[in-house]
Amino acid sequence: MLSYAEPIRELIEQLEALPGIGPKSAQRLAFHLLAAGPERAERLARALVDVHRRIRRCEECGNWSVEALCPVCVADDRERDAICVVADAKDLMALERAGEYRGLYHVLDGLLSPVEGVGPGDLRITELLERIDRLGVSEVILATPPTVEGDATAEFLREVLGGRGMRVTRLALGLPVGADLDYADQVTVARALRGRTEMTE
Amino acid sequence: MLSYAEPIRELIEQLEALPGIGPKSAQRLAFHLLAAGPERAERLARALVDVHRRIRRCEECGNWSVEALCPVCVADDRERDAICVVADAKDLMALERAGEYRGLYHVLDGLLSPVEGVGPGDLRITELLERIDRLGVSEVILATPPTVEGDATAEFLREVLGGRGMRVTRLALGLPVGADLDYADQVTVARALRGRTEMTE
Repeated sequence: MLSYAEPIRELIEQLEALPGIGPKSAQRLAFHLLAAGPERAERLARALVDVHRRIRRCEECGNWSVEALCPVCVADDRERDAICVVADAKDLMALERAGEYRGLYHVLDGLLSPVEGVGPGDLRITELLERIDRLGVSEVILATPPTVEGDATAEFLREVLGGRGMRVTRLALGLPVGADLDYADQVTVARALRGRTEMTE
Repeated sequence: MLSYAEPIRELIEQLEALPGIGPKSAQRLAFHLLAAGPERAERLARALVDVHRRIRRCEECGNWSVEALCPVCVADDRERDAICVVADAKDLMALERAGEYRGLYHVLDGLLSPVEGVGPGDLRITELLERIDRLGVSEVILATPPTVEGDATAEFLREVLGGRGMRVTRLALGLPVGADLDYADQVTVARALRGRTEMTE
């Protein structure tokens, strides 16, 4: 069997290292990019380099931003007495896409994980406390994911924030919208039952 | 809703333009590449630019190659009296992966398509005829795909090559290995029936 020329093999390897791209897709993508000519590949290459050259972290909340402060932090229509705490900027974007929340954010840069050696000192918790005091925040929404690490981090923050006299809430657990009860896992169904809400007229 | 910063949006657009990558995957990939740091993105960017700088077309068969002649054309263990005609280099790679064929190739650079205005003069047919004469080829395998354009191109080449006293064959049509008869389309089942082969002991 003919093996690929080295530059093709290298491109396939780089594509295969991306999440959700298997060996077959990586080959198909590489051949597509080869057949589509140099301009196409160079535009993608430029976008890849550019995104790291031009995007930095918001000095306030840790969100991705072109400027020193991100669009959320500079917007004058956001409520400044609520902070939603997320593990990373990807989760911040997911919440923004939902279009429901009008407050500020704080990116932790990870989750507590004794297994991987991530302790409170590795997360942006000092910065969070400083912002809470400075802004006079009345609610902190812990939007860490419903995983072992996300639960542990939320629990830790709840303890740290306790006694500061503000509301500390967490995202609701329950059935995803449109879900089939039959297909939902037991833990989710149990949490949906436990968190059942009163139906009002 | 917060819109993405311009460099992020540009990266998402470039990724979304790739085949098989939808808006959701493009977002996920962009955020992954952002979070993974500049080295990761730059390695991919370099591979994209490199593949076009270093890969050219084999002067003989049209395959992708780092050198003037591709690995198939320079290999001394390939049979030089058979040429397998393919639409593009991707198809050549697919045949090589099968590991069954030991002859040479010829890349046409497309298929006849009156609709898209591709005529015989747009394909590397003159080069094919020149090679056939020069190499004294005894079999030409037409490995164009079983589509309208692939059929038309194979039919055209069969006519051009007729009377030159060589075998002209085409890839077999039939059920894909492992296929469920029940799921195969009618045309494929009909072709598999028509092309049925004698079972010998």
